[in-house]
Amino acid sequence: MHDFRDPAERPPVDFWFDFISPYGWLASLRIDELAARHGRVVRWRPMLLGVSVLKVMGLKPVMETPLKRDYVPREIARYARRHGVRVVRDLAAAPMNPLPAARLFAGLARHAPGAAKPFARAVMQRYWVGDQDMDEAADLERVLCELAPPGLPPAAELLREGAALLREETDAALAAGVFGSPFFIVDGEPFFGVDKLELVDEWLARGGW
Amino acid sequence: MHDFRDPAERPPVDFWFDFISPYGWLASLRIDELAARHGRVVRWRPMLLGVSVLKVMGLKPVMETPLKRDYVPREIARYARRHGVRVVRDLAAAPMNPLPAARLFAGLARHAPGAAKPFARAVMQRYWVGDQDMDEAADLERVLCELAPPGLPPAAELLREGAALLREETDAALAAGVFGSPFFIVDGEPFFGVDKLELVDEWLARGGW
Repeated sequence: MHDFRDPAERPPVDFWFDFISPYGWLASLRIDELAARHGRVVRWRPMLLGVSVLKVMGLKPVMETPLKRDYVPREIARYARRHGVRVVRDLAAAPMNPLPAARLFAGLARHAPGAAKPFARAVMQRYWVGDQDMDEAADLERVLCELAPPGLPPAAELLREGAALLREETDAALAAGVFGSPFFIVDGEPFFGVDKLELVDEWLARGGW
Repeated sequence: MHDFRDPAERPPVDFWFDFISPYGWLASLRIDELAARHGRVVRWRPMLLGVSVLKVMGLKPVMETPLKRDYVPREIARYARRHGVRVVRDLAAAPMNPLPAARLFAGLARHAPGAAKPFARAVMQRYWVGDQDMDEAADLERVLCELAPPGLPPAAELLREGAALLREETDAALAAGVFGSPFFIVDGEPFFGVDKLELVDEWLARGGW
């Protein structure tokens, strides 16, 4: 059931992610290309999984959960081998503080939308593959320098404004029922997990079922 | 990488499940046929997810977890539509007490292995599709009557013996890192979730990667 209206009129696919989630990063490598094949754009939306969403759910982070924490690195390694992705970061180590990255992303999405995804991609690439720390504003400003268009507000202002925007996004995530990273919403239909990408593909192709 | 030894010599695929899990039930409808295509048999192994495994993990049941409990019924309904499965049981209702069913299953697996899977299938069919309660030994003995071969120990004895066997199985599940239902172990490789069936298929076809 294809929709032949102008692709620009079709609603975007929402891709919710947290910078701390390896699954979110793996999904980020595929979702835009996947959606584009169906004439859709993807709206990347940041949210705070560990800091906020898991608290609402009353859950610990996965890597602090017995049994699951042993499984996740095996699953990530298997996925990486299958998809030819290199993962260097030690999953068992404490995750990055996602606040500065997510705030900057939210600020960029407002002031320089075209730079937001490249920024997020670069941060995740450096963190997961380059094994570089991305906790501090200084780490992130170096990424920003390479990508930010002229005329952007200073980083401190993006961070400050981004903090409010990120709170709004996290509230919107909770309101939409988002409980993990990655989480996709396609025409109102929710899909949790990178394992769902094939199903999202099918959903977009068939227009649901 | 196919293995052309006698299929009977190939190690079985372990399929861990809890009767309370709708995902485990959905997997039970496909796993034997899937494995058979690769010359494998499936060993169904019962374990107590809610009563035991989640406690070790420090987690609440999914249907008591905010946000996730709203998502699960949608996901199950979507899966059911895609695979042509009818699900009648209300997922939001309190789940069945899995102890009698799992104990009988464990007892059958010991005393009448050929009747164990048909018993589990019939119980789950009645519970998930027939919306019949399966909490009590009496509910289960009616299923048993239709399937059990002659010469089987009485149900009370199967239940008693099954209680010890089920404890052993649940301990074995924990030792193997099983943390959910369904959970598959294929030649030592762990796979969690019904969403992994396509990946298990590929793993069996390629002999891993």
